[in-house]
Amino acid sequence: METDEDTIDLRSDTVTTPSEAMREAARDAEVGDDVYRDDPTVNELERRAADAVGTEAALYVPSGTMANQIAVHVHTEPGQELLLERESHVYRWELAGAAKLSGTQTRTIDAGERCVPTPEAVHEGLVEEDLHRPGTGLLSLENTHNYRGGTAIPADRIAAAAEVARDAGVPVHLDGARVFNAAVALGVDASEIVAPVDTVTFCLSKGLGAPVGSIVAGDEAFVDEARRVRKLFGGGMRQAGMIAAPGLLALENIDRLADDHANAERLAAGLDALDGVSAPEPDTNIVVARTEDAGIAAADLVTACKDAGVGCVEFDEYTTRFTTHIDVDRDDVDAAIDRIGDVVAELA
Amino acid sequence: METDEDTIDLRSDTVTTPSEAMREAARDAEVGDDVYRDDPTVNELERRAADAVGTEAALYVPSGTMANQIAVHVHTEPGQELLLERESHVYRWELAGAAKLSGTQTRTIDAGERCVPTPEAVHEGLVEEDLHRPGTGLLSLENTHNYRGGTAIPADRIAAAAEVARDAGVPVHLDGARVFNAAVALGVDASEIVAPVDTVTFCLSKGLGAPVGSIVAGDEAFVDEARRVRKLFGGGMRQAGMIAAPGLLALENIDRLADDHANAERLAAGLDALDGVSAPEPDTNIVVARTEDAGIAAADLVTACKDAGVGCVEFDEYTTRFTTHIDVDRDDVDAAIDRIGDVVAELA
Amino acid sequence: METDEDTIDLRSDTVTTPSEAMREAARDAEVGDDVYRDDPTVNELERRAADAVGTEAALYVPSGTMANQIAVHVHTEPGQELLLERESHVYRWELAGAAKLSGTQTRTIDAGERCVPTPEAVHEGLVEEDLHRPGTGLLSLENTHNYRGGTAIPADRIAAAAEVARDAGVPVHLDGARVFNAAVALGVDASEIVAPVDTVTFCLSKGLGAPVGSIVAGDEAFVDEARRVRKLFGGGMRQAGMIAAPGLLALENIDRLADDHANAERLAAGLDALDGVSAPEPDTNIVVARTEDAGIAAADLVTACKDAGVGCVEFDEYTTRFTTHIDVDRDDVDAAIDRIGDVVAELA
Amino acid sequence: METDEDTIDLRSDTVTTPSEAMREAARDAEVGDDVYRDDPTVNELERRAADAVGTEAALYVPSGTMANQIAVHVHTEPGQELLLERESHVYRWELAGAAKLSGTQTRTIDAGERCVPTPEAVHEGLVEEDLHRPGTGLLSLENTHNYRGGTAIPADRIAAAAEVARDAGVPVHLDGARVFNAAVALGVDASEIVAPVDTVTFCLSKGLGAPVGSIVAGDEAFVDEARRVRKLFGGGMRQAGMIAAPGLLALENIDRLADDHANAERLAAGLDALDGVSAPEPDTNIVVARTEDAGIAAADLVTACKDAGVGCVEFDEYTTRFTTHIDVDRDDVDAAIDRIGDVVAELA
Ligand SMILES: [Ca+2]
Ligand SMILES: [Ca+2]
Ligand SMILES: [Ca+2]
Ligand SMILES: [Ca+2]
Ligand SMILES: [Ca+2]
Ligand SMILES: [Ca+2]
Repeated sequence: METDEDTIDLRSDTVTTPSEAMREAARDAEVGDDVYRDDPTVNELERRAADAVGTEAALYVPSGTMANQIAVHVHTEPGQELLLERESHVYRWELAGAAKLSGTQTRTIDAGERCVPTPEAVHEGLVEEDLHRPGTGLLSLENTHNYRGGTAIPADRIAAAAEVARDAGVPVHLDGARVFNAAVALGVDASEIVAPVDTVTFCLSKGLGAPVGSIVAGDEAFVDEARRVRKLFGGGMRQAGMIAAPGLLALENIDRLADDHANAERLAAGLDALDGVSAPEPDTNIVVARTEDAGIAAADLVTACKDAGVGCVEFDEYTTRFTTHIDVDRDDVDAAIDRIGDVVAELA
Repeated sequence: METDEDTIDLRSDTVTTPSEAMREAARDAEVGDDVYRDDPTVNELERRAADAVGTEAALYVPSGTMANQIAVHVHTEPGQELLLERESHVYRWELAGAAKLSGTQTRTIDAGERCVPTPEAVHEGLVEEDLHRPGTGLLSLENTHNYRGGTAIPADRIAAAAEVARDAGVPVHLDGARVFNAAVALGVDASEIVAPVDTVTFCLSKGLGAPVGSIVAGDEAFVDEARRVRKLFGGGMRQAGMIAAPGLLALENIDRLADDHANAERLAAGLDALDGVSAPEPDTNIVVARTEDAGIAAADLVTACKDAGVGCVEFDEYTTRFTTHIDVDRDDVDAAIDRIGDVVAELA
Repeated sequence: METDEDTIDLRSDTVTTPSEAMREAARDAEVGDDVYRDDPTVNELERRAADAVGTEAALYVPSGTMANQIAVHVHTEPGQELLLERESHVYRWELAGAAKLSGTQTRTIDAGERCVPTPEAVHEGLVEEDLHRPGTGLLSLENTHNYRGGTAIPADRIAAAAEVARDAGVPVHLDGARVFNAAVALGVDASEIVAPVDTVTFCLSKGLGAPVGSIVAGDEAFVDEARRVRKLFGGGMRQAGMIAAPGLLALENIDRLADDHANAERLAAGLDALDGVSAPEPDTNIVVARTEDAGIAAADLVTACKDAGVGCVEFDEYTTRFTTHIDVDRDDVDAAIDRIGDVVAELA
Repeated sequence: METDEDTIDLRSDTVTTPSEAMREAARDAEVGDDVYRDDPTVNELERRAADAVGTEAALYVPSGTMANQIAVHVHTEPGQELLLERESHVYRWELAGAAKLSGTQTRTIDAGERCVPTPEAVHEGLVEEDLHRPGTGLLSLENTHNYRGGTAIPADRIAAAAEVARDAGVPVHLDGARVFNAAVALGVDASEIVAPVDTVTFCLSKGLGAPVGSIVAGDEAFVDEARRVRKLFGGGMRQAGMIAAPGLLALENIDRLADDHANAERLAAGLDALDGVSAPEPDTNIVVARTEDAGIAAADLVTACKDAGVGCVEFDEYTTRFTTHIDVDRDDVDAAIDRIGDVVAELA
């Protein structure tokens, strides 16, 4: 997307640009060689990230995909099954890394609107190892659930699913790329959502606004092994403190996610009011709009919106995703609604 | 299972013992070193196997699992998706070989009673390669469908599913371990079922009664590559003519599968007549009995049947499988019904 | 190779055809479904194979390649190193299965004429796991050493190499495809050679004359896991007793390997006497002839020998391998020397 | 290593801390979402990196390990051989990624002091694909050669090795983590060294002084595929411009590597003058000191040096590596020689 002063970029909360404070923090960061564990800023970020989700330890990695794939790699053995939701990020968008890098066989559960499988579905999906069948090596959940519209899943629903797996001796990973959005939406501390799982991924570079980086967190033994897998995958960085420093500030942006949620609600209401468009009230910062009734294909909508100065992404044949974030304020939302309204009117 | 003169072994059609003619054929087989392609009996078996399913070429391998896994390996690249039915053998019973040996990510379709996915379901299940998603590398179908009860799937249903994949440039494999059961049940030639797919597996050692071996068949280019993968997997055998010779006779057993089907129908009727047991009329030689209404767990039924002289296998919590084959005649079926009837009466 | 009454086939000891007794044994074999462990002949073969090499347990598999690859798979984890001799079969001829099927990184030692690495070389080759380096998962040795000329390696040399690995906690596998040739040549029991290693492969289908099959042997825990990996690789066979029965007779062919060795010695002497040909006295049944001095490329020699009625194989630019076996007697050897002599005279 | 004002850190040129100018550049960087290819700073860095080594295109990645592993993954297929030098970084220090992530079998050449295999050795190491053997998929070279002492390998020696591979249809990768050190030492442009190979890795974070990041470069088609593999491995970063900006300045640090080389030469001379220590004159910035004659184990030397305020790393039982870099000036070198002299005197 060519940068254009005027464009309201709602493609993703990954497009946020770092604040002045983050830029200053990068400049002033105390650094060392993190491969030798000598970078004090990274070390502090890892400590504070662990605190933020209530785990013993945490590891800083270049991307959410690497965070999730490290978790899969540490928890499973090749040939085991990976149980996850049919529309989860790990299954849909990570280039089959779970099979290719870790040799796991995926088993999917369609959780529908619920986004997290019921305890019964988890029970049914768990496979015990025998002569003919690989056992389940990991249950992976996602909160908020990106593809299903940024749904904030209550902690007890996560706990119920996780309990079934853990009772069967199967570890549980949470892809919490946007777990703080869930926490804020639900009015709980993220550690409450994370408590019932073994490990969690979250991103500093989405709603929290850091330029680069994600966290994978768990107990000390997990993080020790994760550090080794990070090196295998090529994620060991040197004076990483320069990008970890903005990450520390990102951890202070948790509360302001509420603004993004309010903006998303406003945007959804505005879009839903359009003829032929339906956009249910979002839980968090992701607005999913259906334009089937208007007969507008998502691909066409995305192109026309781009021309009209609104960035968005196609999710499905008739489904388009709009995401609010730190660089979008209430006025931007209102402007976006206007522009999209014009586009829809023209295309319908 | 300890062999017992009296036991009626309905665990699987894999338990059949070779006929006298097969034993004589093994003794008299002309052999050579098949790794050098010098075994005339294997060469003839491969030619006749190809003819039986209407393909250009065929390869003799030690097991149906190897046949299927070779097909997956030849057709796909690591990281591509393997699209298959949720209860298919390749997904359920092959120790995640598709992920472990070939690095594919599985995507499952629940085809229910239909056993083969609808064209719409195939269409929806195909994934186009992009920056974030692995493309689909192979569609794998199964006929008869073992786990769903030996269902014989009409050729046009296979063709409809295959067409969608092939139109998208995705090859199609058929796990036809029991494809001749399907052909006989449907009253067509196996080549008609196989025509719309690229490659097919079938077993000489199931209903056809050979002691050992399966076939994977396709065009010459496929079989050349399959031969190499067979060696990689350790399936290259030396004077294999000694077991290929009974395989040649097995190919003459196709028509007699009709007897197994008649016996299975008789068995299902007998079991279904029992209180608390339901056993729908089978298409082929696999009878699936549900004992939930009788409150009898499959595990208990299997154990009690074994004591009563009937071999069977647990499929699910309340589902038990009985399979007819060349070593079981009509009297055996009647005796089995009696014995199972007693067991059910006692357990219920 | 087209079969020709007259041809003396010295390509490999894998080309042997089963004896009448083996053929009768196949016909008369008591069989069952070995996947259910119901085949009494296979069970007996596995017991007697374990006895023959002095291990707790053994597993019957379709090929020597599968036997070795199962051992690699059971002993190692992906990312560990496999330490082996530079010209070993596992490294040269098994299609990189150790990397492809098991994800191990190979580290080679050039043992030269000694064929088995010195203790010092093993010590130097072992890698301890650390943050940057995968640890060694397995040391694999070979006896007799095929590519280096069927060399029979004394038990104490195997023991010395194995001890270094085992002291470092690294298991040791012996590719003993022809371990009984080594035992006979050295005048010891095979169990003496096997004693210092954890697991061993041997072939029933080479000098011992069985049509099909190899053994991988070790302790009970290893064989339990190996059985599962055999299924994963597609090596589970059904009424395998029909080919296991000749395997039982093959175990009685151990002592007669001495005849093959005497014939090989006679052949080597005859070839070495030819101008421009050097063929060192062999330890066992493999004769390696160099024709560089005669200016005859191995590829040309193989072709001309084939026309003259002698089967042999190219090993290297100027190196050709001739192998004696149960189907070749002293007169055949003399005839082969004559024919090869004519060929060399013509080509030189 | 605890940071200590006084310590002269010669462990690696990866320990350098970014300059003020780099810190300012990070703060002021124009950024975008690089996963969408919207980051102008990354785009510029990739263009200028390609120019610096004379390739069509280039890709920014988090580490040198990822750069190399991406090259292996793009160039090879699972089961192919990777031919490389026995002490190369890809083989020694990358956690067997080539086997684990790409399924390649490694074949090593011991190039000794020459560091790059001779054309004859490459010829001998190339394996043609046949029924039994995986073909060679990639030749990987390294310049400067890290483990052998930062050796700068003349361009024609690289060209000679590469030519043999390319003539056989095998692509060539150069691990040029420190290729600019080689270029400066040899007095040529890096593009001259890179010209005969297909792809090259180099690090911004070593002698060039950037905080984070490496480059993998080649033609457009390669980089397109590499971008996808980067995502698979989890190396896709968001507003990466903030660390790419210092990388742009790092590219201006090429000429000043001459100072590091002069300092390394001075250090080697100083160490070699010590009794019991030998340190050959280095080509570039890596000094390798042997202390076997002094009877001082490298592990002990490293520990004692650390206490005395000099950072260094153990390479081997009696070999220790010292590396000069931008944060070490001539006075630091003289101080280091004094301190190490005292340590050696005490330990000897
Ligand atoms: Ca509406
Ligand atoms: Ca059978
Ligand atoms: Ca009933
Ligand atoms: Ca001679
Ligand atoms: Ca640096
Ligand atoms: Ca000295």
